[in-house]
Parts: sequence; structure tokens; C-alpha cells
Amino acid sequence: MKVTPEIPTPSAILEAALYVDDLDAAEMFYGEILGLVQIQRLEDRHVFYKVGGSVLLLFNPEQTERPAVNPDLPVPPHGARGAGHVCLVLTRDEIATMRKHLLNWNIPVDAEFDWPNGAKSLYVRDPAGNSVEFTEAHLWN
Amino acid sequence: MKVTPEIPTPSAILEAALYVDDLDAAEMFYGEILGLVQIQRLEDRHVFYKVGGSVLLLFNPEQTERPAVNPDLPVPPHGARGAGHVCLVLTRDEIATMRKHLLNWNIPVDAEFDWPNGAKSLYVRDPAGNSVEFTEAHLWN
Repeated sequence: MKVTPEIPTPSAILEAALYVDDLDAAEMFYGEILGLVQIQRLEDRHVFYKVGGSVLLLFNPEQTERPAVNPDLPVPPHGARGAGHVCLVLTRDEIATMRKHLLNWNIPVDAEFDWPNGAKSLYVRDPAGNSVEFTEAHLWN
Repeated sequence: MKVTPEIPTPSAILEAALYVDDLDAAEMFYGEILGLVQIQRLEDRHVFYKVGGSVLLLFNPEQTERPAVNPDLPVPPHGARGAGHVCLVLTRDEIATMRKHLLNWNIPVDAEFDWPNGAKSLYVRDPAGNSVEFTEAHLWN
């Protein structure tokens, strides 16, 4: 007899968040240089980008640490400082193309190597110092 | 004539990262209470969980801020402090079930409301204070 109901299993990560001190610089990096599709920019609070079926959130912690002002949308305060991390999926060929593209923009490669299972990773820093990784989809297979 | 090659478009967010001061407490919350499937725990450095096709990374910033020790896997240092944010997908019914389940564990609801497009969000805090949101898949449609 089952007494405890099943714990619902989340089907996906819908949003990953990074924190930046300069949203204009973030927009230049993620929008102009990486070419991500912008979903929303709210003044000096945030800029959001579509990545596949998910959303990459760039927040200014100075703003998001404050209590929400709209009583209908009481989004809890949050905000972090220091280098965060996100990892985005490209194919191996696309990683090579991205590498050249980033170097053309004078974005240095922070690290690049193959994991034991053969997946390649390329790491760069966004203007706020967050560690942005590009890797192949099979990294965790 | 096209002179600039297309910028490769990442197909997915493979990893989202949060930072925690207590990995055992994180394991209790994400593994035991949320029931996520653990992929890897490395001592006091990190614990990783599978969420759909992506991976939720919980890092101890005290460890990840240090330079990598394995020269074959020179993962760049990173590490943040303060409340981060992640958003996981559940159906509306699953959010209601998760709400009861979390209250049974004495995890208080931080906020819950419907967005203008009808998607419901439920927010709780992990033991480190990160803001964990559960929402419906159509939030950003």
C-alpha cells in the first residue's frame, strides 16, 4: 500500500540565472556577440534571453535584492555576487566556429578541453566574470 | 555576399548552477525532499542532479573558487554568494502536489501567484537561501 504520494518530477530547467553589474555590457555580450534572442529587458533590473526551450536570466542583484513592487507579482528577492556558471549546448563544429567568433571579438578563451567521455568544452567569461561554457549535448550521457 | 559566418545558436541550457554553503543540506533538499536524481557528489565540492535533459549543479563556492587541480580538466574557477535563482518545470497539478509535499517537510511557500499569461509559479527557498521556482512550461510562450 502506497501512503506517500509520488514526488512530482520536474521535466526541465526552464530558467538559469546569472548576476551582472552592468546590463548594457551583458546585452552586448549575450545579445550582440553570442547572438542570443532577447525576450525582455527591464531597465536596469534584468535582460532575458531564449536558449532552446529555456531562458537565460541576467539580473542586476542591486535591483533584484529589493522586495517586489507589484503586489500581484510578488517575486521573491534574490541576488548573488561573484562568478556564476552556465553551460550551453553546441555541436563540436559549432564550438570551433564560436571559438573563432569570440576571438574575433577579443573574448579570450578561458579554458578548453575534452572530458573523459569525449565531449569538448570551451569556456569564456562574460563581462561580469561569469564562467560561460559551451559543450556538446552528450557531456552528461 | 556573406562575409561574417553565422553565429552558432546554442540549442539548450545544459547546466544551471547554484551555490550553497552546506552540501549535505543541499543533498537533503534537492535529493531527499525534491526527489531529484543525483548524478554526482564530489566530497565537499559539489552535488549534481538530473532535471530532464539538463543538469542542476550545486557548488560549494569555497571549493570552486580554487584553481583546478587536474591539469587535464582545467575547469575555470567560479563561485558566487547570495541568493541565486533557478526555475523548474512542473504541470499545474504537479505544482499543487509539490506544494503539499513541501509543506509536509515544513518548507514554507515563499510566494505563489499566476503570471499574466496564466502560468502558475510556486517559490521556495533551498537551505542556502536560493530561490527555487516551480512553474508551468508555457510561462515564456
